[in-house]
Amino acid sequence: MNSPEKYLASNLQSHHPYKPGIQPKFSAQVLKLNTNENPYPPSESVSGAILEEVQNLRLYPNPASEDLRRCIADLYGFSEQQVIIGNGSDDILNLCMRSFSDQKLKAGMLDPSYSLYEVLSSIQGSEIERIVFKSDDFELPVAPIIECGANIFFLTNPHAPSGREYAREDIETILENFNGIVVIDEAYVDFARQNSLALLGKFENLIISRTLSKSYSLAGLRVGYALSSAGIISILDQAREVYNVDRLAQAGAIAAIKDQEYFTFTKSEILKQRDLLLANFNEWGWKTIPSGANFLFTQPLNRDFQSDPKVARDLYEFLSKNEILVRYFPLNSLTSSYLRISIGKPTEMSILVERVKQWQVQEKQK
Amino acid sequence: MNSPEKYLASNLQSHHPYKPGIQPKFSAQVLKLNTNENPYPPSESVSGAILEEVQNLRLYPNPASEDLRRCIADLYGFSEQQVIIGNGSDDILNLCMRSFSDQKLKAGMLDPSYSLYEVLSSIQGSEIERIVFKSDDFELPVAPIIECGANIFFLTNPHAPSGREYAREDIETILENFNGIVVIDEAYVDFARQNSLALLGKFENLIISRTLSKSYSLAGLRVGYALSSAGIISILDQAREVYNVDRLAQAGAIAAIKDQEYFTFTKSEILKQRDLLLANFNEWGWKTIPSGANFLFTQPLNRDFQSDPKVARDLYEFLSKNEILVRYFPLNSLTSSYLRISIGKPTEMSILVERVKQWQVQEKQK
Repeated sequence: MNSPEKYLASNLQSHHPYKPGIQPKFSAQVLKLNTNENPYPPSESVSGAILEEVQNLRLYPNPASEDLRRCIADLYGFSEQQVIIGNGSDDILNLCMRSFSDQKLKAGMLDPSYSLYEVLSSIQGSEIERIVFKSDDFELPVAPIIECGANIFFLTNPHAPSGREYAREDIETILENFNGIVVIDEAYVDFARQNSLALLGKFENLIISRTLSKSYSLAGLRVGYALSSAGIISILDQAREVYNVDRLAQAGAIAAIKDQEYFTFTKSEILKQRDLLLANFNEWGWKTIPSGANFLFTQPLNRDFQSDPKVARDLYEFLSKNEILVRYFPLNSLTSSYLRISIGKPTEMSILVERVKQWQVQEKQK
Repeated sequence: MNSPEKYLASNLQSHHPYKPGIQPKFSAQVLKLNTNENPYPPSESVSGAILEEVQNLRLYPNPASEDLRRCIADLYGFSEQQVIIGNGSDDILNLCMRSFSDQKLKAGMLDPSYSLYEVLSSIQGSEIERIVFKSDDFELPVAPIIECGANIFFLTNPHAPSGREYAREDIETILENFNGIVVIDEAYVDFARQNSLALLGKFENLIISRTLSKSYSLAGLRVGYALSSAGIISILDQAREVYNVDRLAQAGAIAAIKDQEYFTFTKSEILKQRDLLLANFNEWGWKTIPSGANFLFTQPLNRDFQSDPKVARDLYEFLSKNEILVRYFPLNSLTSSYLRISIGKPTEMSILVERVKQWQVQEKQK
């Protein structure tokens, strides 16, 4: 038999796929603070909307997710022509990469940020320009982005994994001076102080990518969207799979978005817990990046009040053994002494804090 | 402002997106026989499974759809490593195109067949080789496929839009002699006499693509899958979006597949109606391609017993006016005097036949 590898497209010959955070099979047994899911279930109206839509499953969905586009357009006061729906915001990011990068047109990203950008660029066969940070304060490197020569730049704001929120003036400076498309990946923006919506009227090269996974508790439903100029949306639509969002996802997303009261409730609960957890970290002297997201990026200290990759890994492993999953990024020197911890419910945060205190006691006895 | 078109990737500069069949907003009012949906709702077990899974929507889905892979592997007696799940079989076809075609490696398809292949190849920037039929009997052009020079060939079997089923010996001849990957698109195969599963053990360059849209009444849920060698599946997995199938789709698909009794029931009802409708067409003297699918491809005759594009278009428009949607493909001379009609329930087929008879009376009075 022939080996199928010999027929492989050139872009895939040295490709490394994205590695998601661990999704345990029986998540009831573990405290899952590793992939920034919302600790609260989705709005109660979601299950009713989904159950009603189950009746129509034999029929193809609306290919353009029109009702959902209108719902999102109405929510923010844009036109439907400025909205596109994706099978998760990963689908949106992929459409951006396929539309505006190729073997000659480079993509750009912050390093570190969402590693999927790199994976998508690799499949597309485009080069990716990595813009590094000067320090682990993760300050936005404005000039290097503007000068990087990419045709499309993916700017994660709030930044992941640090959670840092960038100033609107810096974003504006980039949009004004960057010669290409700027994707502001606002996956976490509902937990931030500011967003870039107001810039849409001003810059035609701006795409804002968002998701219902975190702030609407719908990670399992795969719904993301982009807001941009009508011109860019029609380009992204050309590359979109025809029926990319299923009936239940369209119906469930509309129900979730319409329940703004519940959205505001879970958001404010998460922000309260974020503040409380931050107070703990501050009390312990742990450097923590100011967060505009539903997680905290913090640098644990050992008994000698030192931070380093060994300390972070040690706490990561201690928590894992105690069935608390958090995220550790060992491969980059700016992140390897930090842990990223998703914000949960009050009881969950108490369990976490207790466990960390146990670790601290154990540390002191070493 | 800069126009975003100037940043467009080269592959998309002359791209024409896929045009799906009409999906009317209020389908209750029309008899929808244009996109080969199943006239029966999905298995009753689907809604229960989905409602149960709604409880978990705040959590990301299993990224590899592992339970669903196992379910499909078990159904056909393959290993899980030989199965991949897609967001509809369109997702599977896209993964195949991205993995095995590029600017140097051509794709191939039958012309006409599923026009999405061409769209996917255009986005990918690969050339597509169209293999034409000698006549409107849609006989498989075996030698031209083998010699076409493509790196991946998409072979629709049963063929669409004709419904014709190809002999296993011809498929084997192609697999033995074609120097590249062969995707057998078995979207309609559950309504056929044969399939290519038995060839999987014999040819490592074979990918079988399937969908739950038609035979499992789940067009609205977007679940497709491919069966192949473990080597090819692991290649396709590298190009797959991380969380490409949502929780409800995974759960609903498993429930539908496990209810084989209901699957067999709707299938046999559809086959009965296909035979009855064919008997009508035969009685009227309409040339109809022998079908292995849940539709019939037939050539309507006018009062002088002539067929031509005008006759087909005339009946198409008459039916549309009377709220019966069927599919008409005017752009290819092999299809332009035919209509493709999806098989519905007995009452729906009676309405269709009555309307056609009215059209015939009207024709005679012209």
